[in-house]
Amino acid sequence: MNVSNLPPTAFVDPFGRNRAAIAPLLQQVSQQILDYLSGAATTSPLPEVSQAPQVRIPIAPVAVTDLLAQIQHLMAQSMNPAHPGYMGHMDPMPSTFSMLGDWVAAALNNNLLSVEMSPVLSRLETLLMGEIARMFGLGDKSGGVLVSGGSLANLQALIVARNAKLGVLESGLMPFGKAPVVLTSELAHSSVQKAAMVAGLGTEGAIAIPTSEKGQMDGAVLRSHLQQVRENGQYPFMVLATAGTTVTGNIDPLGEIGDIARENDLWFHVDGAYGGALVFSDQHRHRLAGIEQADSVTFNPQKWLYVTKTCASVMFRDMAVLEDHFRVAAPHMHTAPDWPNLG
Amino acid sequence: MNVSNLPPTAFVDPFGRNRAAIAPLLQQVSQQILDYLSGAATTSPLPEVSQAPQVRIPIAPVAVTDLLAQIQHLMAQSMNPAHPGYMGHMDPMPSTFSMLGDWVAAALNNNLLSVEMSPVLSRLETLLMGEIARMFGLGDKSGGVLVSGGSLANLQALIVARNAKLGVLESGLMPFGKAPVVLTSELAHSSVQKAAMVAGLGTEGAIAIPTSEKGQMDGAVLRSHLQQVRENGQYPFMVLATAGTTVTGNIDPLGEIGDIARENDLWFHVDGAYGGALVFSDQHRHRLAGIEQADSVTFNPQKWLYVTKTCASVMFRDMAVLEDHFRVAAPHMHTAPDWPNLG
Repeated sequence: MNVSNLPPTAFVDPFGRNRAAIAPLLQQVSQQILDYLSGAATTSPLPEVSQAPQVRIPIAPVAVTDLLAQIQHLMAQSMNPAHPGYMGHMDPMPSTFSMLGDWVAAALNNNLLSVEMSPVLSRLETLLMGEIARMFGLGDKSGGVLVSGGSLANLQALIVARNAKLGVLESGLMPFGKAPVVLTSELAHSSVQKAAMVAGLGTEGAIAIPTSEKGQMDGAVLRSHLQQVRENGQYPFMVLATAGTTVTGNIDPLGEIGDIARENDLWFHVDGAYGGALVFSDQHRHRLAGIEQADSVTFNPQKWLYVTKTCASVMFRDMAVLEDHFRVAAPHMHTAPDWPNLG
Repeated sequence: MNVSNLPPTAFVDPFGRNRAAIAPLLQQVSQQILDYLSGAATTSPLPEVSQAPQVRIPIAPVAVTDLLAQIQHLMAQSMNPAHPGYMGHMDPMPSTFSMLGDWVAAALNNNLLSVEMSPVLSRLETLLMGEIARMFGLGDKSGGVLVSGGSLANLQALIVARNAKLGVLESGLMPFGKAPVVLTSELAHSSVQKAAMVAGLGTEGAIAIPTSEKGQMDGAVLRSHLQQVRENGQYPFMVLATAGTTVTGNIDPLGEIGDIARENDLWFHVDGAYGGALVFSDQHRHRLAGIEQADSVTFNPQKWLYVTKTCASVMFRDMAVLEDHFRVAAPHMHTAPDWPNLG
C-alpha cells in the first residue's frame, strides 16, 4: 500500500486524529441509508437496471463524493425489500437493530473462526445457539453454529451424518464400498441435492420421495422407497425432512419420519430454514412436533426472524459429533481452555 | 409476530412516519462506532472477557437504551484490530469505505443468490470478479464468485475439479472405482484437508508434500509423490499450490507446479487467499508468476485488501465449468436472460 497516496479518511485513526473528518462521512452514509429506507414506499420494489454497473479498479484514490454518489446509484437500482408492496416471503426487510448490529460487526471485524480472534462474540455464538437448540427440544448436549446460508447448513449436517453413519472422515468413501444415499422429499430445497453432490454421493444420491397432495412426505411411501433403494444395493444413511418447503411452506410429518429414521438407524435431519421460526410462536409451535427427535436442524434467522443476511445456522442434538466427525484442526490456531473453536 | 407489542422503531417505516425516532438511533450507533474506533489506541487489543455474555431470548421488547448498552458492552470485550499494537496479519483493520459498504449492504439486504433478488449487485459481482480474474491473467473466459471464506473457496474449487476430472457430478464417487487424491504442500491451509474430507476423499485424500527449507513445494518431490500415489492405486486429479502460506507467507513455485499439472492432466488450483493481493502491486506482482496457468484461484479481499469480513472469492479460468460441474438448479428461481444466477 502506498501510504503517501492514501486519503486522510481511508482508515479511522485509533488516536482520534481524523475524527473530525470521519464523523461527517459516517453521518452522510447514515443519512443516505435513512433517506433510502424511510422513502422506500416511493420507489419501485424492483427497479430497472438501465445499464450494467461501471467496474473499474482505480489506480489512484477516488474522491469521497464520488464514492458516496456510487453508493447512491447502487442503492437506487437494488431490489427494495422495504417497499410495502414487496412480497419477499423468505427475504424480509430486516429490523432496525439487526441492521445496527451489522454496522457494529463491520466495525469490529472480529473473526469468529477462533475464540482468540473474537473472545466475546465466539462465546455469544456458542451460548445463543445452545439456547435456541434447547428451544427446539434438542436436549442438554445440543448446540449449533452460525453459517452463511441454509445451503451450507444442510451441507454441514449431511457431511456430519455421512461421516458419523459411514465412518469415512479419514478414509473417504471409496473403501466403504456401497453407494450411500439420502432420502428426502421431492419438494426439499435444491441445496439437499447439491449437498449430496458435494459430499461425493452425486446428485442422484439424493432420492426424491414423491409427496402427498398436501406437499408432504408420507411415511408409507418413505418406507417403500427405503426398501427399494436397499434392493438396488444402495445404502440409505439419512432422511431429511422439510419444515417449511421453499415454494408453499409445507411441513413434513416430523414425528412419523423421526420414528422411521430411528427404526432404520438413519440420521434424521430437519431443514427448518424457513419454518423453524415457528418455535418462537406459542400459537404455532405445535406444527413442529417431532422436531425434537432430530439429530440436526437447519434454521435461518435471516428469514422469519427479520435478521439481515447472511445469517443461517445448523444445530446438533449432540455437539460432540461436530468435533468427532467434522473437525480438521488448524495447528496454528490457539484454543481457549473452556470454549471450542467452531470456525 | 405480535405487532401490537412492537416498539415504534422496530422497523424503519417506508413512508417515513418514524423517521424522527429512527434518526437519533442511527446517529447513536454511528457515534458508538466512532468512539470505539477513534479511541482504539486507548483500549487493549485483546480485552479480557470477565464473564460470559448474558444470553436470554426475551419475550417482550427490550428497551432501546438497554440494546445500546449491550452493544457497548460487546464492543468493549471484542478483539480490537484497530489498536496500533495489534499484529493481526491476515485480519486487518478494515478501511472506512469497506465498513460503510457493509452498512449499506445491511440496509439493502439483497440476496445475491439470483439476479431477480439483487439486480444490480449480482451484476456488480459478475463484472468485478471478471475484472479481478483477468488481473490474475486467467483470460477472457474467466470469472469468479464471492464466497464467505477461503475455506469455502477452496472447497468449491476442489468440488468443481473433482466433478470435471472424474465426471462424478450425477453418479457420485462410488461408480468411479478408484480413490481420488489431491496433492498439496504440507504447509497448505487446513481447509484443503477439510475440503477433501467434505468431498468424500477423506482427510487422507489430501496428500501432504514435504516442503523445502524455504517452506515451498519442490517440483521433483511433487513428481515422486505423484508416481507413488499412482503405484498405491490412488487417482491424483488435482494439485493445489499455495500463494502465501498461513504461518509464514511462502509462495510455492507456481510456474513449475503448473507445468507438472498440465503434463499430468491434473486440475491446477492456487490458494492465494492471502498472497493473491500481490497482484495489485507493480513491485511484487512477479512473485505470483505462473498463477496465470491456474484452472482456479482462491483470493480473499478480507485480508490484505482491508475489506471487512466475510469476503473471499474463487475464480475459474473458464466460468462455464461452474455451470457444467457444480450447478444444481433451483426450479423456483427466475433467471435473467443475460446474467447467470451464481448463488
